[in-house]
Amino acid sequence: MKIDHIGLAVKSLDEMIPFYQNLLGQDQPEIEEIDTQGVRVAIFQTGESRVELLEALNTDSPIARFIEKRGEGMHHLALAVEGIEELISSLKKEGVRFIGDKPVIGAGGKKIIFVHPASTHGVLLELCEAVEEES
Amino acid sequence: MKIDHIGLAVKSLDEMIPFYQNLLGQDQPEIEEIDTQGVRVAIFQTGESRVELLEALNTDSPIARFIEKRGEGMHHLALAVEGIEELISSLKKEGVRFIGDKPVIGAGGKKIIFVHPASTHGVLLELCEAVEEES
Repeated sequence: MKIDHIGLAVKSLDEMIPFYQNLLGQDQPEIEEIDTQGVRVAIFQTGESRVELLEALNTDSPIARFIEKRGEGMHHLALAVEGIEELISSLKKEGVRFIGDKPVIGAGGKKIIFVHPASTHGVLLELCEAVEEES
Repeated sequence: MKIDHIGLAVKSLDEMIPFYQNLLGQDQPEIEEIDTQGVRVAIFQTGESRVELLEALNTDSPIARFIEKRGEGMHHLALAVEGIEELISSLKKEGVRFIGDKPVIGAGGKKIIFVHPASTHGVLLELCEAVEEES
């Protein structure tokens, strides 16, 4: 298991990208737009993990609502796991709550699910698993 | 450069440790008490990074004040860097503000400094560098 990425809620990618370019000594980050989630993402690779800047595409976006309520800052932590279905079912037995019943397909075709913040005491925690090609 | 650790502010280590043990499939985490910062830390290794649970040792602790103001949740993001003095000086030229003028020695003997949240738009960002033995 490893940290897959950390998501930072920002008002403006254009405003924050230069800071992370300077800090990380990197060129222009990869930009991905995820319409279904209402976000535009700037992706910086940092070792085996990524720092992702998240900008709302519209006022209904979870990122817009987060910033309205809490301000800009750390939004979620994503862990890369293996055997996500088994892990979910084992954690449910321990009383852990999830947002939704089973993983959905997210960016990059990964299976993702969020643990309910009530179970993590305030951390929005994403579990994700890369989907293997059927052989 | 890589993510060194992510620090999560919790009210009670005892209450949260079992959740991360289940999630990460790990035994009892390493526990470190840092009196100067007023925190007790539970350290879970996750790949090349760590997830650190931070519990206040007293009501003056930065963690106690954070929880009082924002509730439990993600507290800070730490990046492992090389050449921390040069990086600080180069970022200062770009207008980046820091908490304190130069790195201090933190847990594990590392040189650490925090970027001012005004420069990161709400992210409490730690830069840290392992100190090489003089040869």
